[in-house]
Amino acid sequence: MSTLLNENERIDDLQINGLKIIQQKDGFCFGIDAVLLSNFVTVKQDYLGVDLGTGTGIIPILVAGKSKVRHIYAVEIQEEVAKMARRSVYMNKLEERIEILNINLKDAPSYIKPHSLDFVTSNPPYMHANGLVNENEKKKISRHEINCDLDDVMRTASKLLKDNGSFFMVHRPIRLCDIFVSARTNKLEPKLMRFVHPKPSKAPNLVLIKFVRSAKPELKILEPLYVHKEDGGYDDEIIRTYSITELGEDFG
Amino acid sequence: MSTLLNENERIDDLQINGLKIIQQKDGFCFGIDAVLLSNFVTVKQDYLGVDLGTGTGIIPILVAGKSKVRHIYAVEIQEEVAKMARRSVYMNKLEERIEILNINLKDAPSYIKPHSLDFVTSNPPYMHANGLVNENEKKKISRHEINCDLDDVMRTASKLLKDNGSFFMVHRPIRLCDIFVSARTNKLEPKLMRFVHPKPSKAPNLVLIKFVRSAKPELKILEPLYVHKEDGGYDDEIIRTYSITELGEDFG
Repeated sequence: MSTLLNENERIDDLQINGLKIIQQKDGFCFGIDAVLLSNFVTVKQDYLGVDLGTGTGIIPILVAGKSKVRHIYAVEIQEEVAKMARRSVYMNKLEERIEILNINLKDAPSYIKPHSLDFVTSNPPYMHANGLVNENEKKKISRHEINCDLDDVMRTASKLLKDNGSFFMVHRPIRLCDIFVSARTNKLEPKLMRFVHPKPSKAPNLVLIKFVRSAKPELKILEPLYVHKEDGGYDDEIIRTYSITELGEDFG
Repeated sequence: MSTLLNENERIDDLQINGLKIIQQKDGFCFGIDAVLLSNFVTVKQDYLGVDLGTGTGIIPILVAGKSKVRHIYAVEIQEEVAKMARRSVYMNKLEERIEILNINLKDAPSYIKPHSLDFVTSNPPYMHANGLVNENEKKKISRHEINCDLDDVMRTASKLLKDNGSFFMVHRPIRLCDIFVSARTNKLEPKLMRFVHPKPSKAPNLVLIKFVRSAKPELKILEPLYVHKEDGGYDDEIIRTYSITELGEDFG
């Protein structure tokens, strides 16, 4: 296993179907956001999809590892991160089903046939590039809209999806109006939405949304997902669904 | 008091500041929606406002009765309902502060000076006119977009508000994408949003939104409002805030 790992990297067990992932010890790790999104995704056998801004590759690895989708492209602009994701794919023997593309997601329609995909996933940068930026470069690119913004993600998802194909995204509720306006502009209709709250008495800090290309307007909101019970401790649904022991730092 | 009441009407005590309201026994009554919206509204002394589609007049009566706003216009297209609301205003001695206008809300900018108001409130029809329609005519007009639709409400609110003026609306979450797209088109930026859930384990069935005219994008979502506790019985916040004994039929 040691040849798979660079210095400053570790292998984490995803505790489902034997899946594992390579992460950096001090740098870029996946958060609960990606795990929640993977679980929100619904796919069918032989589906084709893409993950836009894949980072460690956590989303395609979980989706491919838990389903019978045929092929997932996974787009990552940062070369070092893309290589690390590719090693995770090999480690999980998923190299025939997951293909890491080290490109800007805006260029994805030159590599993947437009309107050919059944689904798209994305855990995009949440913050405007003009927001507070005081992190290292890799985290900065994954969290702020430096190389691509929300409109780029929406436009690319729409270009790659078939009509009636689904786009699953996790984002911050603070951007919800931007998200819906951009979605409608790009023929992506929000059909299903679930808010994630730290606990029942707190405002949601994440939102999971399923858009369907060219669908008619009608948004169903699901019951909330609470990470913790009111008195602390993980909520039963979280425990039941996510057997991951260490949750990411992004979740308060 | 009897001269104030037509046949088939009753007077209900709003149980706050001695306020009362006239409603029809078998027809058009206000719901919890309007009471929740009134409580979501924030106003200052001497503010000028309008309520678009006022129905019984519940919203301006509660807002004027609980605050020191100077004047609220209240627009209602149905003549019989507008007259009933006017009698409620008199009954509460609010006739110098609340003015019922029996007009289509689309025509309000001909009666009220454009960009002159500090706030707008609305509990508009929730459903598309092509939805299920099997109620009596008055309920039909108040619940379905027959005489005005969401865009009309948004456009009128924007025409009447000053820059930085606030529009407070209650609506159904199912329309959230339509709402945000129409708001952005009309320079109304959603700044504050609160979902109302029947209980913590259920999806929200109402949403309270504050838009600010010409504000910059950034949406804050508040902690949820639960009407009932998980095990039944009203939530403490509902009991603390709403002393109304009989809640409307619209809330499941």
